[in-house]
Amino acid sequence: MDQKRCAVASKESLIRIFTVPEAPDSTLSKIESEISSNLAGFLNENIAAIEKPLHEIEKDFQTATIPEEPTFVSDYAQDIMEQLVAHSVHTAAPSFIGHMTSALPHFVLPLSKLMVGLNQNLVKIETSKAFTPLERQVLGMMHHLAYGEDDSFYSKWMHSAKTSLGAFCSGGTVANITALWIARNRLLKANGDYKGIAAQGLIAGMLHYGYKGLAVLVSERGHYSLGKTVDLLGIGRDNIVAIATGENNKVDVDAMRKKAHELEASGIKVMALVGVAGTTETGSIDPLNEMADLSEELGCHFHVDAAWGGATLLSSNYRHLLSGIERADSITIDAHKQMYVPMGAGLVLFKDPAATDAIEHHAEYILRKGSKDLGSHTLEGSRPGMAMLVHACLRVIGRKGYEMLIDRSIVKARTFADMIKQDEDFELISEPELCLLTYRYVPKEIQAKLKEADEETKLDIYASLNRFTASMQKRQREAGRSFVSRTRLTPAKYDHQPTVVFRVVLANPLTSKAILKDILAEQKELAKTDPVFKKYLSKYMD
Amino acid sequence: MDQKRCAVASKESLIRIFTVPEAPDSTLSKIESEISSNLAGFLNENIAAIEKPLHEIEKDFQTATIPEEPTFVSDYAQDIMEQLVAHSVHTAAPSFIGHMTSALPHFVLPLSKLMVGLNQNLVKIETSKAFTPLERQVLGMMHHLAYGEDDSFYSKWMHSAKTSLGAFCSGGTVANITALWIARNRLLKANGDYKGIAAQGLIAGMLHYGYKGLAVLVSERGHYSLGKTVDLLGIGRDNIVAIATGENNKVDVDAMRKKAHELEASGIKVMALVGVAGTTETGSIDPLNEMADLSEELGCHFHVDAAWGGATLLSSNYRHLLSGIERADSITIDAHKQMYVPMGAGLVLFKDPAATDAIEHHAEYILRKGSKDLGSHTLEGSRPGMAMLVHACLRVIGRKGYEMLIDRSIVKARTFADMIKQDEDFELISEPELCLLTYRYVPKEIQAKLKEADEETKLDIYASLNRFTASMQKRQREAGRSFVSRTRLTPAKYDHQPTVVFRVVLANPLTSKAILKDILAEQKELAKTDPVFKKYLSKYMD
Repeated sequence: MDQKRCAVASKESLIRIFTVPEAPDSTLSKIESEISSNLAGFLNENIAAIEKPLHEIEKDFQTATIPEEPTFVSDYAQDIMEQLVAHSVHTAAPSFIGHMTSALPHFVLPLSKLMVGLNQNLVKIETSKAFTPLERQVLGMMHHLAYGEDDSFYSKWMHSAKTSLGAFCSGGTVANITALWIARNRLLKANGDYKGIAAQGLIAGMLHYGYKGLAVLVSERGHYSLGKTVDLLGIGRDNIVAIATGENNKVDVDAMRKKAHELEASGIKVMALVGVAGTTETGSIDPLNEMADLSEELGCHFHVDAAWGGATLLSSNYRHLLSGIERADSITIDAHKQMYVPMGAGLVLFKDPAATDAIEHHAEYILRKGSKDLGSHTLEGSRPGMAMLVHACLRVIGRKGYEMLIDRSIVKARTFADMIKQDEDFELISEPELCLLTYRYVPKEIQAKLKEADEETKLDIYASLNRFTASMQKRQREAGRSFVSRTRLTPAKYDHQPTVVFRVVLANPLTSKAILKDILAEQKELAKTDPVFKKYLSKYMD
Repeated sequence: MDQKRCAVASKESLIRIFTVPEAPDSTLSKIESEISSNLAGFLNENIAAIEKPLHEIEKDFQTATIPEEPTFVSDYAQDIMEQLVAHSVHTAAPSFIGHMTSALPHFVLPLSKLMVGLNQNLVKIETSKAFTPLERQVLGMMHHLAYGEDDSFYSKWMHSAKTSLGAFCSGGTVANITALWIARNRLLKANGDYKGIAAQGLIAGMLHYGYKGLAVLVSERGHYSLGKTVDLLGIGRDNIVAIATGENNKVDVDAMRKKAHELEASGIKVMALVGVAGTTETGSIDPLNEMADLSEELGCHFHVDAAWGGATLLSSNYRHLLSGIERADSITIDAHKQMYVPMGAGLVLFKDPAATDAIEHHAEYILRKGSKDLGSHTLEGSRPGMAMLVHACLRVIGRKGYEMLIDRSIVKARTFADMIKQDEDFELISEPELCLLTYRYVPKEIQAKLKEADEETKLDIYASLNRFTASMQKRQREAGRSFVSRTRLTPAKYDHQPTVVFRVVLANPLTSKAILKDILAEQKELAKTDPVFKKYLSKYMD
């Protein structure tokens, strides 16, 4: 054993790990070959079906001391299969319909390996060369998809050193931050002796322009990353103003207008409106055209967070749902969501190619002025070549392929909504506009009881149903056969009280109608044995 | 061809790309198998040696229209090999010593594929399960490496829902932003009726505490991401105060102290000192203990940007160079630099496990209070399972393996410095403290001329040498045999005038002494035919 341990610790063997690949019959090579030949089978076989409690899993990750001695790769591979892979989440399972992580097209696996092997750094041309024009092209293609400018626009700007049509990001959060950073810096831009917020900071900017405060207005269904964004930007979470939504979970633009005028009358400048195109919880799309009108009235930045819904633009049949997005100053789209790219691929697009002037930066050793280095217009610095995977998906799947995927998901969500509505023990809480919907299990006896209940009983049932829904969701996850997530909404049906619901995302192309049927059946069974139900709700079942 | 194109566009074939892997004899499978069996060979053979001009490369990335029709994976693979891979940068080449991207240990390639195939999302346990304790363990190990707390500390905090010992990030920039975001929010924290900057914004915070402005003090060699950070945080780039360095490129702490007191006397609060542990340009390490003393005097946050140098802590022989880092409130370390992990793995560590309280956030559908979801303490939202690759490297290479790698790099840099000093036509500009150094080519005749030159001649020679060095660096890169980068310093030797120099990073374990010798020889040859030299400097060669 000691001899084995020493194998990596000699100079020669250290160099070997950089030069000699794993033998084809090594544990790691075998794992890799299983993944290559049958990913779904590999995941099904190696991820344990029954959930192990987190505190049990943690036992394998207890020491805080970096091991002194090297470990053989095969030993490590063995450990990781038992301790990590077995207790990871089968996000690609067709019955895992609770979150936005789905199955991946097979070809992205070998391409990811190529990307890692090339180990390019997209911050600058000197460490990425052809990856730079490739990333600019992907941004151009996505810009064209959203804004549809003509050829001359793209031949002028797509590869221009001075501008960026967008920025690649690790995900939608960084995309949203980048968009609102630009919005803030453009609002408080240089003017006369004042050198602008980027140079002088927020306070100088506010004094110069005479604003008492800044506000960002967004639907109450806006993503939590917007809270982080205004915190980071120094605007403060109190100044992200949540506007009520109607029963369809779309923001009420009249309420937004009223609030905006109130704020501006009191000296608070509305810095940006954020429209949501596919809310995280219900998949609803805000009325983007009306919001664009309002942002023009207010003279403020209009950002659309289409992290989830942006890919819908790829479908001629449904892109009209996002009508008005082409009027946004900036748009967030996550390629690692409905574009089926692996985790870590977000992007933000800018209507005005000069938008990134507001955050441009340089350094002596890279990002020199006039260079085409991507890093001078991004929040992040060193970044991997994820753009290649988006490029690959756009080319291999093609617009028509994406259209089919998007359309199928929406149809599937409608089918599932019908299945829920047809079962008298389930209640559909939000209708699917894209492929998300929410629902809950409420036995018809409870539904009947609620209709005649006095206020006190009603509130007791509401509270109990919330506990019960949370319990069911947890037990279903732990059973390991399927997974739906849960969230809390305030539907009219429940007097706008906080209401815990199952949340479902139907983006996995492998999720069939039979699977959906099974999930409802499983929930019915789980309900029968639910301890929370027994304790708090069975008394209403007479 | 049409029939071929249609293959992916039918519903059946669309599903196939999610279920059926590439055939073993397909183009993409062949590429993958080449990478697996011989990565270095693959890169050597497939990346073109001679640089193609960027405007030529761009021709293959011109269209901004997403293709309507799908493309066969094999056709795409073929295209990408010719248009992208051939014109990417061979960052793993032992003669590519200009940037911080190096060769990778072989085992990270199959592990990356496993990571992509599992497609976990580390924002929450529901989409990452065992990856969450794994990531917490890696943060714990790195925390222990830097801060060396005892076992009881780690068993209390490492897996605690309430705290984080650090945060994984896409890279050092996000790590630095996270650190200074926390510093700002802790400085302007809630107090009495004032709810804190996170809620109320920067202006309310400044008014509450009576500060006229905030400042961040850092060496003039600080990384450009710090400028982005203070811009983003609303502090303004003018308020990042660059402090002069001595001849060894370490910050002058006395000058920093003087400046800090000046600022505070005028009502500007020093929010943070940033120490650099391995400057990007010269690899120098600031006097961290002295800076820690100063930050205690000032009662301000002390951040250490050890993106590059942090890995030196893994060597018992050199970790003393970073002495004082254990007194930092936060530390940035990039695993994708000297820890040989692929691009996209940065991290920030916090001395105080409760530090992230200042940026904590929740949402209804995830990151619920009391959960162990990592996302409630990170700037980013959805994130891939990169922590697994850091975990793998720590285990497989072990501390002793890293020690050997780090030590070898430092020794190699000293050897190269000696080679430069022994050649009378080269000048070493910065001595290596870690494995970075800078130098330039100045023929001995020019060196002699400079000694007797009048002021005007001297300045002319200085300017010409700068142009010449830049020209040589560019021509060497274009020739494709080797790569050094360049930057601009202000060494005493050149009267503190801006001085363009070659910059070298010797972290690739495969870079040999023979290669370094060749690089100097190549530069001597290049100098002979350099058009800038001929035009501006040959007249001084009498």
